[in-house]
Amino acid sequence: MDKTIEKLKELTKDIVLLEHAIATLSWDQETYMPPKAIGEKGEQLALLQGLLHDKITSPGIGELLDNLGADDNNPAGEFESKIPTDSAYIKETFRQYKIQTRLSKKLVTALALETSLSQAAWIEARKQSDFSLFQPHLEKVLELTKQKAEAIGYKETPYDALLDEFEPWTTTRDVADIFGSIQPWLTEFIGKIKEVKQVDDSFLLEDFDISKQEVFGRKVLQDMGYNYERGRLDVSVHPFTTTLGRDDIRLTTRYQKDFFKTGLFGIIHECGHGLYELGFGDDVRGNLLASGTSLGIHESQSRTWENVIGRSMSFWKYYYPELQKYFPENLGNINLDSFYKGINKVEPSLIRVEADEVTYNLHIILRFQLEQELISGSLAVKDLPEAWNMKTKEFLDITPLNDADGVLQDIHWPMGAFGYFPTYALGNLYSAQFSSVMEKEIDVEDSLKNGNLVNILDWLRDKIHIYGASKSAAELAVDISGEKLNPEYFKRYIENKYKRIYKI
Amino acid sequence: MDKTIEKLKELTKDIVLLEHAIATLSWDQETYMPPKAIGEKGEQLALLQGLLHDKITSPGIGELLDNLGADDNNPAGEFESKIPTDSAYIKETFRQYKIQTRLSKKLVTALALETSLSQAAWIEARKQSDFSLFQPHLEKVLELTKQKAEAIGYKETPYDALLDEFEPWTTTRDVADIFGSIQPWLTEFIGKIKEVKQVDDSFLLEDFDISKQEVFGRKVLQDMGYNYERGRLDVSVHPFTTTLGRDDIRLTTRYQKDFFKTGLFGIIHECGHGLYELGFGDDVRGNLLASGTSLGIHESQSRTWENVIGRSMSFWKYYYPELQKYFPENLGNINLDSFYKGINKVEPSLIRVEADEVTYNLHIILRFQLEQELISGSLAVKDLPEAWNMKTKEFLDITPLNDADGVLQDIHWPMGAFGYFPTYALGNLYSAQFSSVMEKEIDVEDSLKNGNLVNILDWLRDKIHIYGASKSAAELAVDISGEKLNPEYFKRYIENKYKRIYKI
Repeated sequence: MDKTIEKLKELTKDIVLLEHAIATLSWDQETYMPPKAIGEKGEQLALLQGLLHDKITSPGIGELLDNLGADDNNPAGEFESKIPTDSAYIKETFRQYKIQTRLSKKLVTALALETSLSQAAWIEARKQSDFSLFQPHLEKVLELTKQKAEAIGYKETPYDALLDEFEPWTTTRDVADIFGSIQPWLTEFIGKIKEVKQVDDSFLLEDFDISKQEVFGRKVLQDMGYNYERGRLDVSVHPFTTTLGRDDIRLTTRYQKDFFKTGLFGIIHECGHGLYELGFGDDVRGNLLASGTSLGIHESQSRTWENVIGRSMSFWKYYYPELQKYFPENLGNINLDSFYKGINKVEPSLIRVEADEVTYNLHIILRFQLEQELISGSLAVKDLPEAWNMKTKEFLDITPLNDADGVLQDIHWPMGAFGYFPTYALGNLYSAQFSSVMEKEIDVEDSLKNGNLVNILDWLRDKIHIYGASKSAAELAVDISGEKLNPEYFKRYIENKYKRIYKI
Repeated sequence: MDKTIEKLKELTKDIVLLEHAIATLSWDQETYMPPKAIGEKGEQLALLQGLLHDKITSPGIGELLDNLGADDNNPAGEFESKIPTDSAYIKETFRQYKIQTRLSKKLVTALALETSLSQAAWIEARKQSDFSLFQPHLEKVLELTKQKAEAIGYKETPYDALLDEFEPWTTTRDVADIFGSIQPWLTEFIGKIKEVKQVDDSFLLEDFDISKQEVFGRKVLQDMGYNYERGRLDVSVHPFTTTLGRDDIRLTTRYQKDFFKTGLFGIIHECGHGLYELGFGDDVRGNLLASGTSLGIHESQSRTWENVIGRSMSFWKYYYPELQKYFPENLGNINLDSFYKGINKVEPSLIRVEADEVTYNLHIILRFQLEQELISGSLAVKDLPEAWNMKTKEFLDITPLNDADGVLQDIHWPMGAFGYFPTYALGNLYSAQFSSVMEKEIDVEDSLKNGNLVNILDWLRDKIHIYGASKSAAELAVDISGEKLNPEYFKRYIENKYKRIYKI
């Protein structure tokens, strides 16, 4: 049996290498690629995706999985509960093998090609703020995505099949239940904030020198324990973190003079993702389990660093004097308390990535509902902008002025990543749940006040990072907090923090 | 038949795409990759090289080539002389198919992996100037290279098989004949220069602001017709040009404060390569013929721009006043004539890439002889440093002070690129031959004096670039100048130029 699992590991090695090669091409596309190169890049990616599909679906892997006894009822095969990482390895291989063998190579490469074209069209449509330029592409991508869901199969709804790619072992019903519990609560809480005096954040919207933003951001990265020997920080239109190799985890960010939050908190956010991937344990690193176990858990890491840590009073007790030295004109006359309130201002806004942590999840629930309707067919692509605007009004009580700041703001649908959005909200919830435990186990406040960020990293690494995908999201939650994902942690976190800030 | 050739083009499409994906990974390795990522990069490249080998040797291609009647006697199949590009397409596919089917996938991936490790070892050995650190790696690479030559096969000597990869349809004997004709001539000519007063180039070796070097270099690039929509310029330790897509041809250079020639002439040199790849005609662009037809021809383009154009008096009549404005402290008191002489100083030196255009070819002949001995086995790797130093003394009358400035200076052997070096010298000779015709057909001097570099580009594009690999090096030479490669052009070019500079 040991030999069989070793053989499986050997056979699946190329999968990881190819994924990293693909990540290299995609990273290049978002960072340094000259503009006209986009045409062929899509063809290259489609080819590599097809080759990756060949590798994952190779009959050799199927045979080994058979020999190991992996099937739908027992995806970890006979190894179940013997060697945990090996069990997890078989389970993850089986999951990927099962999904990919149900997809034809034709569909996989068609999706790669169409989503590449669709992203290019989306960029143009967004520039011109004209949804109609993007509509035919989205229709094609949606059609292929529906085919994909049907091919993969599902228990209750096609959306289950899509969600599973990003949040394995989680169903649409799970997500709907959780969102159902937080949505009315959020609306009520935001309503309370609306009734009291708003905090001022105007000083954050003046010009902040970009080169200084970068130097300060890099300083925080270093303190967080990010390793430039195994990664880089570059600039891209849409910030992201990507893994190009077991020792090559790269971050990107963007700097805006008049909105320094994207530079600073964007860097902290992406670094949270990066530290997860940098922290995989030795029996996981570089193999099929070397990935976040779900995007929700991945996001929990970025959001913990960005919000629980990066938007906390203790963090800024340490960093604010330093930040003021970098930007004396901007912040010289702003005291710590005003700064802290400013970076935590709660106010319904149009752009998801710029939303505060209270209203943020409503942006997600909106998308979760709309994409389910698109997949089920109850909403036509041509009617999407109107539906978007109506739901924005319903959820946030504001209306987008144009498509660019509305339905065209996110890259996910152009990428064909239906089922991705909910993981952002799940990440916020997991983050609150994990942090609540972390605060009991280590002295977070004291660590932050002393700039000892590595203390935080050590806890996260020990509890989450080292496992990679060898524990599922639910297993992590139970092992850390004694229970599955429970949105009450998030509610408590938000209440504790914002009742103080807004005195409600 | 038309359908068969279309099918061949369809089947070979992925070859080009994979080559470009590989180029993307290699480009990344040389430019932006974080240091620790090197370990896995080699594995990724080996995997992709293996997949590329699968594609080129696919039985489908073999069948089509059979149907088209391509064989050793008639590599262009029955299409010979009907549609020139189609003939060339079949011929080039046959050439690649034949070579690759003779190589096992095992050998191809072993070479990819070993040369990646060997390059890492070489970097370290060079840093420490200690050949012994590199020796075992070179031994392995050499052994695999010999296996490769044997597998490919040859008429007279294993070196033929290796040379053919870089300079198709050219034999060791061809090269040896040509080098035999220029070596004594060069030695004699250099001897004459040694007898007269040396020119002064000390002002070129003072500090030149690097950011200004870059701005000036980019200005010249623009004037040469380089297209940033289809390319980029980055920094790397070893300057190179590489093609990541049909619309993605990238250059790199390096800047040294105290040696501004590498920045400036390096940029012009690489741009010469880049313009070749940017200039492929529509029936060549993006397919298997979209490459330089040989490295010799490729180098002829870079050397024409770097030396014939970039080190000419007419070029600097236009650019020198501008350059003086960039560097008034360095060049304010140096007149055009002194500058011109300085950048054309002839003096035997240790480093090939910094050699002047007269002594340069001796560096190549030295390497050509040594690598033939390594391949034939008459020289052992352990004895290479001594042989290197002795030949340097013999050819250039100087002795390397250490391995770093001697046997370890070039990346080619670490890369396993035996057979590559001669193409540099062939490039110099082709450059002189083509330029001699160009000067008859257009008014080069006048174009340069007016900064009209695009006039030069148009000629090169029309005569050389548009054809890509659809005409062989020899065909190009005959079509342009009425004869095959003839070293007399080079001798005449050198004499004309340097007799004036040195008044001999």
